[in-house]
Amino acid sequence: MTKFDEATQAIRVDENTYDVCLDPGYSIGGPLNGGYLMAVVLRAVVDASAHEHPVTTSAQFLRAARPGPARVRLERIKTGRTAEMTRATLLQDGQAFIETLVTTATLTAGAVPDWTDGPSAAMPPVERCVRLPDPRPESNMTLNAQVEMVFDPPTVGWLDGAPSGRPESRAYFRMAEPQDPDPFVLAFAVDALPPVVFSAGARGWAPTVDLTWHLRALPAPGWLTVLGSGRMIGDGWFDEDVEVWDSAGRLVAQSRQLARVGRG
Amino acid sequence: MTKFDEATQAIRVDENTYDVCLDPGYSIGGPLNGGYLMAVVLRAVVDASAHEHPVTTSAQFLRAARPGPARVRLERIKTGRTAEMTRATLLQDGQAFIETLVTTATLTAGAVPDWTDGPSAAMPPVERCVRLPDPRPESNMTLNAQVEMVFDPPTVGWLDGAPSGRPESRAYFRMAEPQDPDPFVLAFAVDALPPVVFSAGARGWAPTVDLTWHLRALPAPGWLTVLGSGRMIGDGWFDEDVEVWDSAGRLVAQSRQLARVGRG
Repeated sequence: MTKFDEATQAIRVDENTYDVCLDPGYSIGGPLNGGYLMAVVLRAVVDASAHEHPVTTSAQFLRAARPGPARVRLERIKTGRTAEMTRATLLQDGQAFIETLVTTATLTAGAVPDWTDGPSAAMPPVERCVRLPDPRPESNMTLNAQVEMVFDPPTVGWLDGAPSGRPESRAYFRMAEPQDPDPFVLAFAVDALPPVVFSAGARGWAPTVDLTWHLRALPAPGWLTVLGSGRMIGDGWFDEDVEVWDSAGRLVAQSRQLARVGRG
Repeated sequence: MTKFDEATQAIRVDENTYDVCLDPGYSIGGPLNGGYLMAVVLRAVVDASAHEHPVTTSAQFLRAARPGPARVRLERIKTGRTAEMTRATLLQDGQAFIETLVTTATLTAGAVPDWTDGPSAAMPPVERCVRLPDPRPESNMTLNAQVEMVFDPPTVGWLDGAPSGRPESRAYFRMAEPQDPDPFVLAFAVDALPPVVFSAGARGWAPTVDLTWHLRALPAPGWLTVLGSGRMIGDGWFDEDVEVWDSAGRLVAQSRQLARVGRG
């Protein structure tokens, strides 16, 4: 069991209730990273489901969750031969922090697509990509140590006061502790990039309001390629669209989140 | 009040309950169109909300809904100064047909984006676009008469046995009865295209499993441009991504649905 497996594990209390413990190692300056929290919720959902894979996850982020004990409450919405639907809520001290609707199904390992597009952007080779600087200890950005992400350099120009001018972030991603990617790692990966608005010149806290991601295929071992972009920033809102490709060149996840910008 | 306003109206029973009547004029061969159903649910959500606009709607489609009386049940998840979150369920005879999580907020009319991309595809002028043939009466495709949609011709080649080979569908859209587009029309528009898989050569029933759409801006009067595409078809699933632009050239809605293919 890796550290990530341990940090996301869900212990069954009854068919509708799982106990979890939110790990301080996934902090983004105090609050815990949304992708990590989705992975925790999905462990419970998948364990309780007759199907194996979280094909659609729609999450609303109500309040910033903090490390410590928490509970996942499940409500079976629909069972079925092809897919199940579950409402899952993450609670701490009886208060809801995340609401989700999840569709589970069982994908076919090694399925070859009938049709596929290619990645929406080209990436330089791994060797030409760059790490983020280590965060200052007082920043409480413990998340960075859990992952190995190396970025397409123009998409981190904002670190040196030279943002590219458009919302984008592109990186190769893998867990810092060696681990083959799986759907729970993908739940984490779709929300692991620095906010795409940083490349458009924004700074500061950019909280996710809601995020929906789709598991399109079971990932092969090795690096994931995480391509983030946005279509429009305005009126205090921005969209962040992420697609994840595996080392075999397959599209494995798609995500769109709506977030607030400018609460700097 | 237009026919669409009437077909989507929600009558308050109490703060958590609205009565609605599902109109047979929005049928796609028996079941009712998902976008129309989302518009009905959102009328109730918005009426009950302190905020004016449905900024995010995440819907799970559990069962095909049929015309007749129905009820929308609301559950207030979170109130707030910037946004509210509501769970809304569409029920008929006490059984849930659609589950949704909705974020409401109040967008600024006429807001100018801080940054925007352009449309993902070019469209020919309206005069070079083509209508779908009228459906046969026995097909019970009453939806077609509610809208005026004219299509970029290569994206309807499948009508003549010449699909383009990639998942796509692009059209200008307006309601058949003159009406300025509003967020409820947009809820309908994001699910009004023929399934994008038809252009990739698939035929038959392609039911939506879940759909999340975002209202990005309040639309200007006039034609909407609805651009549909997909990234991958495989293992019985396809994604349909839709962006909607208004007559002022602004991005007003983004949508992604996951659907089943090949249950022909």
